[in-house]
Amino acid sequence: MWGGMTKERTGARMDIDSLAQSIIAGERRALARAITLVESTHPDHRQAATDLLQKLTGCGREAIRIGLSGTPGVGKSTFIESFGLMLVEQGLRVAVLAVDPSSQRTGGSILGDKTRMEQLSRSPAAFIRPSPSKSHLGGVARRTREAVALCEAAGFDVVLIETVGVGQSETVVAELSDIFLLLLAPAGGDELQGVKRGIMEVADIILVNKADGELKAAATRTCADYAGALRLLRRRPQDPSGFPKAMTVSALDHSGLEQTWAEITTLVDWRRDQGHWAARRAAQARHWFEEEVRQTLLARLAQPAIRAAMSELSDQAASGQITATRAAQDLFARLWPEITTAAAPESLDDTADTP
Amino acid sequence: MWGGMTKERTGARMDIDSLAQSIIAGERRALARAITLVESTHPDHRQAATDLLQKLTGCGREAIRIGLSGTPGVGKSTFIESFGLMLVEQGLRVAVLAVDPSSQRTGGSILGDKTRMEQLSRSPAAFIRPSPSKSHLGGVARRTREAVALCEAAGFDVVLIETVGVGQSETVVAELSDIFLLLLAPAGGDELQGVKRGIMEVADIILVNKADGELKAAATRTCADYAGALRLLRRRPQDPSGFPKAMTVSALDHSGLEQTWAEITTLVDWRRDQGHWAARRAAQARHWFEEEVRQTLLARLAQPAIRAAMSELSDQAASGQITATRAAQDLFARLWPEITTAAAPESLDDTADTP
Repeated sequence: MWGGMTKERTGARMDIDSLAQSIIAGERRALARAITLVESTHPDHRQAATDLLQKLTGCGREAIRIGLSGTPGVGKSTFIESFGLMLVEQGLRVAVLAVDPSSQRTGGSILGDKTRMEQLSRSPAAFIRPSPSKSHLGGVARRTREAVALCEAAGFDVVLIETVGVGQSETVVAELSDIFLLLLAPAGGDELQGVKRGIMEVADIILVNKADGELKAAATRTCADYAGALRLLRRRPQDPSGFPKAMTVSALDHSGLEQTWAEITTLVDWRRDQGHWAARRAAQARHWFEEEVRQTLLARLAQPAIRAAMSELSDQAASGQITATRAAQDLFARLWPEITTAAAPESLDDTADTP
Repeated sequence: MWGGMTKERTGARMDIDSLAQSIIAGERRALARAITLVESTHPDHRQAATDLLQKLTGCGREAIRIGLSGTPGVGKSTFIESFGLMLVEQGLRVAVLAVDPSSQRTGGSILGDKTRMEQLSRSPAAFIRPSPSKSHLGGVARRTREAVALCEAAGFDVVLIETVGVGQSETVVAELSDIFLLLLAPAGGDELQGVKRGIMEVADIILVNKADGELKAAATRTCADYAGALRLLRRRPQDPSGFPKAMTVSALDHSGLEQTWAEITTLVDWRRDQGHWAARRAAQARHWFEEEVRQTLLARLAQPAIRAAMSELSDQAASGQITATRAAQDLFARLWPEITTAAAPESLDDTADTP
């Protein structure tokens, strides 16, 4: 299934340079191996992943990164299968990655990822990677961000990043994507309120799926409702006239898929021309840099000496001897004095009173 | 409105000891002033707040902390007004605090907080504190946690912590509460899905409000639906038989309020007897200690030298010269070498391959 392997592992050393070359040469096995590397939390692997990504940064390849969100049951897999195959038929190479925060609870990747998209997964022009196993959303985000960069370096034209609509994960995926699609099911007008405003605001195109058979009329109505809701949102500078927009699609009878792609390319071309594309990628790079700094700093708390001290102070806070705030203060005073922020004040007179 | 002040500020120094004594003596103005102190981000004020809270820890007073969540329009203010007045009539002292993450956007506290609860705010046995102005949810959580402790020390019997139902804030409020109430409006069965499972799981009592007039029948049906949904959830060890439960109330005609309080006290008594009460408070203290450690650590990033270096590296990441990960690595290597985690590996052979 992961075929196309042209270079055997020798069982001995493989250095970052040759891994980078194999990825650029489009070797699927090298790509899979590199993604496994970025998923690893082992410090040596982290360093190797960082070096690999830095090396690939200069290769100049850029995919269209499409985020796709939708609640369970809305037909995401069927849509990706149909949409992905349509792109492949147009001669494009398509990678599919998943951000599934719920895999944290189930303790493993979605077993069904490849069976869910059976035809697409058999295509030599497609690459499907399931969600990594248990990790917090922050960790999943870093891994997905790095996996996207690997897929770009490997020459994929489109990288689809799928997530289940459960709140925070959409925000993460929006920060990874150039274009964000929101897939919805036909529904009564009441359910419009079920889509949170924050998610509406990151969507570039709302796709009302299942516009076929009995549901076709409901899908058309729902689409009109969302189109109306989108018109109420403030115009974003990165949108040409008419965007964000709502459309109906049917992953089942393949209607609306080519129109979806046409709208995406219209949006991509416009944003590239107007400089919004590069501006968004730059803003995302800043965001992920800051996030990486925060995560690296917090990872320090996992060190044995700090964990031991935290455990002791946590016991004291739990027993009610000291407040949580004082316990934290004690930790820094003991182990990391340069973090301690303040001396005791002489007076509180500058505290504003609330009348 | 904030009456009951028995001690004038002299305009000169007020030390932490006398502030603590005034709070314990039940002086409302001292309580208001102390809450302003814990809301301040000035380092001297933070230290004073930490000292004050540590001093009050030993006073041994404990309130019933009730978290209350519900979407806008469900009637939270009217419920708190009716429920709070009912408690006051029973001779209890009631404090109301709000966690409103949206005040971050509107840039200020909810002006309406006191007008919304007009009668309750006039009661000498009640204390209502609006949401603090702009701050991130983490900051609001710390402030609210500390304000709750201040209200307990001031001798309030019940502390109501209100939040708008917008996802994360419920989780925060649940970590601050002994009992969590979810207030819902009567609705069709379809909207059941609109309540996220995670929120159902923290609720101790679901209250279907507006069980009056035309909506009474719908409220009864909705209540039955939620009762059914609650039965599908896994039994939690901290619940006696019959909990979590769903009930109808009407804040308008005051029905169901006394029953709600009776259910709360049943739950409180059972949890105290069984040791769950103390266990939950201890677990919460551990949670907030860890959160405080994380926030203190991240606050370090605001220091001028680090901000300057971050700004420069952020520019490099934005321009595409270096990856976000490498930029973060460079930051720590430059300013905080003890955070740097790893040396370059000789070999990747221990990287597991994904076949």
